[in-house]
Amino acid sequence: MELLNKTLANIQPVDEDFLAKAQEKLDNKTKPPGSLGRLEEMARRLAAINEDLTPSTEKKVIFTFAGDHGIVEEGVSLFPKEVTPQMVLNFLRGGAGVNVLARHVGAEVRVVDIGVDFDFEPSPGLIIRKIAKGTRNFAKGSAMTREEAVAALEVGIALADQAKQEGVSMVGTGEMGIGNTSPSSAIIAAIARCSVRDVTHRGTGINDTALEKKIAVIQTGLDLNSPNPEDPIDVLAKVGGLEIAGIAGLVLGAAANRIPVVVDGFISTAGALIASELHPHVRDYIFAAHSSVEIGHRCMLERIGAKPILDLEMRLGEGTGAALAMGLIEASAKIIKEMATFAEAGVSDR
Amino acid sequence: MELLNKTLANIQPVDEDFLAKAQEKLDNKTKPPGSLGRLEEMARRLAAINEDLTPSTEKKVIFTFAGDHGIVEEGVSLFPKEVTPQMVLNFLRGGAGVNVLARHVGAEVRVVDIGVDFDFEPSPGLIIRKIAKGTRNFAKGSAMTREEAVAALEVGIALADQAKQEGVSMVGTGEMGIGNTSPSSAIIAAIARCSVRDVTHRGTGINDTALEKKIAVIQTGLDLNSPNPEDPIDVLAKVGGLEIAGIAGLVLGAAANRIPVVVDGFISTAGALIASELHPHVRDYIFAAHSSVEIGHRCMLERIGAKPILDLEMRLGEGTGAALAMGLIEASAKIIKEMATFAEAGVSDR
Repeated sequence: MELLNKTLANIQPVDEDFLAKAQEKLDNKTKPPGSLGRLEEMARRLAAINEDLTPSTEKKVIFTFAGDHGIVEEGVSLFPKEVTPQMVLNFLRGGAGVNVLARHVGAEVRVVDIGVDFDFEPSPGLIIRKIAKGTRNFAKGSAMTREEAVAALEVGIALADQAKQEGVSMVGTGEMGIGNTSPSSAIIAAIARCSVRDVTHRGTGINDTALEKKIAVIQTGLDLNSPNPEDPIDVLAKVGGLEIAGIAGLVLGAAANRIPVVVDGFISTAGALIASELHPHVRDYIFAAHSSVEIGHRCMLERIGAKPILDLEMRLGEGTGAALAMGLIEASAKIIKEMATFAEAGVSDR
Repeated sequence: MELLNKTLANIQPVDEDFLAKAQEKLDNKTKPPGSLGRLEEMARRLAAINEDLTPSTEKKVIFTFAGDHGIVEEGVSLFPKEVTPQMVLNFLRGGAGVNVLARHVGAEVRVVDIGVDFDFEPSPGLIIRKIAKGTRNFAKGSAMTREEAVAALEVGIALADQAKQEGVSMVGTGEMGIGNTSPSSAIIAAIARCSVRDVTHRGTGINDTALEKKIAVIQTGLDLNSPNPEDPIDVLAKVGGLEIAGIAGLVLGAAANRIPVVVDGFISTAGALIASELHPHVRDYIFAAHSSVEIGHRCMLERIGAKPILDLEMRLGEGTGAALAMGLIEASAKIIKEMATFAEAGVSDR
């Protein structure tokens, strides 16, 4: 709890003056003002976060948090629980979607076992910080104790602190956890006080009958646990997940350390939502990677106040969207760093 | 005319069976079926275009066609005509937006002088294929003769043919030409028979008064020239541009040579529209890079039947959107090539 409180106390908004200075620099580049649209917005924010008009994007790391979910015993997912550790091993061998896309953009993938119901051997690229062997079934009681939720948040914070020490210039979030769209839907329904039906979707691809059941299970969990929407940690503990808590911590830690954080899709954004409910200035450091197919994602992004960079109709998670968005954010940094000015190029301004 | 006719005769649709085979390969990868959304769609098309389930994206070239426009004397643009050659020199020095973004994705930029009102010295990266020193003012007569339009189309075709010989795996389109949103609006208005107002926007950033004037000038040009919507070359010659013709030719040549072609924003799409009106199967080879801020762009894309990959509120042209999209298309190729299957990874399928 001490690390969490210290981190929250360290989060500052980005400096408006720096945003203006960055835009001034962009406006001298050989292009009509504003004509690179959202690339300019990203470049501005990168500069302001780093307080540097030539922001580095050299060292990019995606943290893929893995955890299991007791709610799976209610039949909310198409895939069996065993797939969580199997996919962790796939990540470690470099064969998963996030590995391919991270390599493509020059990012490193670090897999964090924060709550998988499996004992992994130590392995390069695997960070073992297990808080529990999965959450408990939130349709029958609280998913975690408050202490477990805080401990999982602090795992994410500590990873961001370490990334800062290593000189990491951008972090991305990702996750793996069979069943984890259910706690994500529960979190947004609890915090935004909206109907479960409006924020619950097909996850890995369940049919209509299974979707009805999933909605009912989540509703049961919310009714039983009555999470307090004014207390994000209460929501996280009662209906959340360990990997979601880890992501929330990573986002808080990134903000406190002034590291831009690229938030992947639906489940990652559930984590970012917890973080931004805990501190309003967290949103200054968040880049929303993409718009997920999951219907509850838009509602989360609206509440955070973030606009997704990509919309490629993806719904895989792992950090796949974060990887692709990192490539575009890095492109925006190169625009502010490398493009010639009107004066340098001898081009007539208007 | 002979090269154009030969090229049109060589364009074939992509094989539906190959699309299905590619999807089958994607469905064995360690992810829920379809969960990579539009990346899967891109990978499928790349595989079908190449008739290869491990499509190469190694060698990527963006052709940035430059030309001047007689219509500029009507005051349709914010920037003076001199900016066209100045920007060509900026491209050759590597300082423009397209250079920065092409370097980012590992693509080469080739600048094609197809109609600039300036005599360039020979330079690496510059291809001089000047058809005329700009078009004539289409508010006072035809922009080009039909012969000029065909010659410019054939410049683009020849560049695609040469790219095939060099083993280029993906081409992108780009353009530079002060005043060139006006012919682009005229082309879509003529072909789709829609109102000039609905497809005319602010280009580099003109104000309301200048926009009204621009709409009136384009309308005058259409009334005066009466381009025949059933004859795309007539439309291109009467109200088009030399760089737009070059792009149309490149798109045709890419389709005939089975090279995927990434079409940039509004002006490039005017070229792609001419190409797809000339041959219906051209669209199988087109990847629409992004959704431009120019309001006429959507109408063009609908007519072609292409869905843009990115929407970053860009309106710079040059090939900047094509460069960014190339990075994503290449990512899709890596998904089909590099991701592990369920069997390889020992992951349980549903």
